[in-house]
Amino acid sequence: MERTAIFPGSFDPFTRGHAALVEEALNLFDRVVIGIGNNSSKQGLLTVENRKRLIDDVFRNEERVEARIYTGLTGEFAEAVGACAIIRGVRNTTDFEYERTMESTNHRIYPDITTVMLFTPSPVADISSSTVREVLSFGRNVEEFMPEGIDINKYL
Amino acid sequence: MERTAIFPGSFDPFTRGHAALVEEALNLFDRVVIGIGNNSSKQGLLTVENRKRLIDDVFRNEERVEARIYTGLTGEFAEAVGACAIIRGVRNTTDFEYERTMESTNHRIYPDITTVMLFTPSPVADISSSTVREVLSFGRNVEEFMPEGIDINKYL
Amino acid sequence: MERTAIFPGSFDPFTRGHAALVEEALNLFDRVVIGIGNNSSKQGLLTVENRKRLIDDVFRNEERVEARIYTGLTGEFAEAVGACAIIRGVRNTTDFEYERTMESTNHRIYPDITTVMLFTPSPVADISSSTVREVLSFGRNVEEFMPEGIDINKYL
Amino acid sequence: MERTAIFPGSFDPFTRGHAALVEEALNLFDRVVIGIGNNSSKQGLLTVENRKRLIDDVFRNEERVEARIYTGLTGEFAEAVGACAIIRGVRNTTDFEYERTMESTNHRIYPDITTVMLFTPSPVADISSSTVREVLSFGRNVEEFMPEGIDINKYL
Amino acid sequence: MERTAIFPGSFDPFTRGHAALVEEALNLFDRVVIGIGNNSSKQGLLTVENRKRLIDDVFRNEERVEARIYTGLTGEFAEAVGACAIIRGVRNTTDFEYERTMESTNHRIYPDITTVMLFTPSPVADISSSTVREVLSFGRNVEEFMPEGIDINKYL
Amino acid sequence: MERTAIFPGSFDPFTRGHAALVEEALNLFDRVVIGIGNNSSKQGLLTVENRKRLIDDVFRNEERVEARIYTGLTGEFAEAVGACAIIRGVRNTTDFEYERTMESTNHRIYPDITTVMLFTPSPVADISSSTVREVLSFGRNVEEFMPEGIDINKYL
Repeated sequence: MERTAIFPGSFDPFTRGHAALVEEALNLFDRVVIGIGNNSSKQGLLTVENRKRLIDDVFRNEERVEARIYTGLTGEFAEAVGACAIIRGVRNTTDFEYERTMESTNHRIYPDITTVMLFTPSPVADISSSTVREVLSFGRNVEEFMPEGIDINKYL
Repeated sequence: MERTAIFPGSFDPFTRGHAALVEEALNLFDRVVIGIGNNSSKQGLLTVENRKRLIDDVFRNEERVEARIYTGLTGEFAEAVGACAIIRGVRNTTDFEYERTMESTNHRIYPDITTVMLFTPSPVADISSSTVREVLSFGRNVEEFMPEGIDINKYL
Repeated sequence: MERTAIFPGSFDPFTRGHAALVEEALNLFDRVVIGIGNNSSKQGLLTVENRKRLIDDVFRNEERVEARIYTGLTGEFAEAVGACAIIRGVRNTTDFEYERTMESTNHRIYPDITTVMLFTPSPVADISSSTVREVLSFGRNVEEFMPEGIDINKYL
Repeated sequence: MERTAIFPGSFDPFTRGHAALVEEALNLFDRVVIGIGNNSSKQGLLTVENRKRLIDDVFRNEERVEARIYTGLTGEFAEAVGACAIIRGVRNTTDFEYERTMESTNHRIYPDITTVMLFTPSPVADISSSTVREVLSFGRNVEEFMPEGIDINKYL
Repeated sequence: MERTAIFPGSFDPFTRGHAALVEEALNLFDRVVIGIGNNSSKQGLLTVENRKRLIDDVFRNEERVEARIYTGLTGEFAEAVGACAIIRGVRNTTDFEYERTMESTNHRIYPDITTVMLFTPSPVADISSSTVREVLSFGRNVEEFMPEGIDINKYL
Repeated sequence: MERTAIFPGSFDPFTRGHAALVEEALNLFDRVVIGIGNNSSKQGLLTVENRKRLIDDVFRNEERVEARIYTGLTGEFAEAVGACAIIRGVRNTTDFEYERTMESTNHRIYPDITTVMLFTPSPVADISSSTVREVLSFGRNVEEFMPEGIDINKYL
């Protein structure tokens, strides 16, 4: 049986930490759909379209991964792509408590979708989008925070 | 591609909470191998053999689930049954911190095995083996803590 | 001796989770005064007056409960209504750490008021005002998150 | 309406931190019954009888407080003394997670008993029975950890 | 060997809790440079210049302490003043998780700077800048939250 | 001014994680005294003498580090060696909560000794003595968990 998981987030931008989580997810599922939440109220570093373009470039040679922009509840998006699981990377207890609340609501509305928490592999566990944005705002190089071969300047 | 996950634990005894987690895991994997850790130094409520017998009875009609007794590192057991994942139920931040430490060591020794954390569904999230043992020790009925149709007295 | 507790919050809107906490509080105190904090800087889903109207409707037949709008420090409000306790629902460790800091300050200024933490009963523990607002923003029905018999549309 | 709360624990020994919690509880309830759990499998510093004697001495002049030794589930003890509440002092998130699990089970078996968490007042928040036992084991004076006027040597 | 630590923060305003942490830091280091982060996007209670003036007044007679306004990454500031350590006060697990993420990034960019976490001494552990701002906004006296002899009104 | 810190623990055995913490501590202090707590009631993997021998071997060429066996309260040991600080490695919130309780008691008895929490550098953050003992008990090689060049078999 083929199984799909979604990996939802803002991905502003997608980082080396996110890439490591997708690798883990591909060990578990046949297909991973990266869902870029389109929250129009928040002005981001990258436009939603460029976030997608960056992710498309990262997974150019991995046909099991696909990026999509979505609006609405995450569970609804999971149903729409035929997923059985929502992948969430959890770095610490603050993340964990947030996920527990989210999962509880999702489970109530979409009982057939399972939330799967993965640990971000420790060498890249500290890399978050907000770190990238902050380091960048001080004019520093962020290459080591980005997925292999990605130059953030091409998406700004 | 067929995928197997292990669900390791002491299962002394296997509870309604564990059963709910196996249901979730079956939503994600083709096969779930329940691994009963054989830690000879600890005297339990049930013998390891009876723990297995109880689990076998719970999943009598579910051929995708199997129970096995194992000794040694959990990652080694995962490799032996050809699993790609270790399932862990996480109820709270204390569990979470424990899992993070375990995962980190497992990942170091067995990089191809992914630790998957699931939330125990909330109506049964409080049910643990130690609760069952404590409630039982005061001579009270534990039927509502046990998987559907399981009478703990048959395994004591 | 008659005892009063206050139950402060934004209640935007009051949910099934809040209602369950008030039930618990009525098991402990003779009177519960629900204090709706009037934080004018935040634009809410409901006006402060409609939040009060909704709560009044929930407890129409419970004369031991009363809703009031207040401005200022919570401890001051507690003193003003003659309360001995501040009720706080705590769902997780993030809530808990927040409460600890608040309590410490309150205790310093109002040593006679005791902060009482209660667990939201687990079947409704995941229901928060922000969940209601988010689910509603995607055009979905929120009836199961609201107190019995309350139609949110009458207060928007 | 008169209300009773129980305050269960091992109290080996009862400390200045416990005394501060009882004071808080007396602000909320008409009567506080301190329940000394009789867990015969654990060898303590004080005998269960001497733990009671020490507590009786602390509250010699406070007729609203009473100490009792109990065996069995805490909820059962609460019912037996006609209590509506179980008081628990919570110092940190580790305590909190433990209480959440306990409460969930208690609530399932004894739905009419409410678990009430209180913060130990911060000047004495670090004082625990195990601290007293450890400091004592190194031959040091523990007077400042004990309730006003209590000499631990009279109970050893 | 002389050693310098920086103590970075917003200090809006510097409180009695901060002062207690500086005292602890002086027990460990020869010199403490208090770094006032100049985050122009946030409108504060005090101007950045007045925050510095307040801190200068607190440590008028302590030549081992100096306050500076800085822009940019904290690690960069630490290098600029020749510090070997970044001092952080940690009150609870939420703070701790935040520090862990920050430290991980700092360590990656500035491997020679060590993040040192200290506990705020418990009598003042609850005092935060945001408490001061909130209490002040309700027109109450904040003298007991401020360092000895500091009148907040002189800096507003 | 010369400053000494103690780094107390069981060190059964001293690991690569401990070694990394000592390196960090040497960035902050002139001298680090590793204190091996002699808790006679616990049977360990290594004798206390061999734990010391192993640490002596690790720091054979680092004269600023010294290992000592001690009995009694940690604060007392700190005073005896003229230390101003107690170094503690903190990996997660469970460790943190434990340290907070310990620090509070230590601060009460030894107000001049500052507890300093450091993060174990992330590549080795998961390595604990108990991991080493467990991995070893299953007959596996632990070389990567031990300090550079240390063969655990020489100390068993």
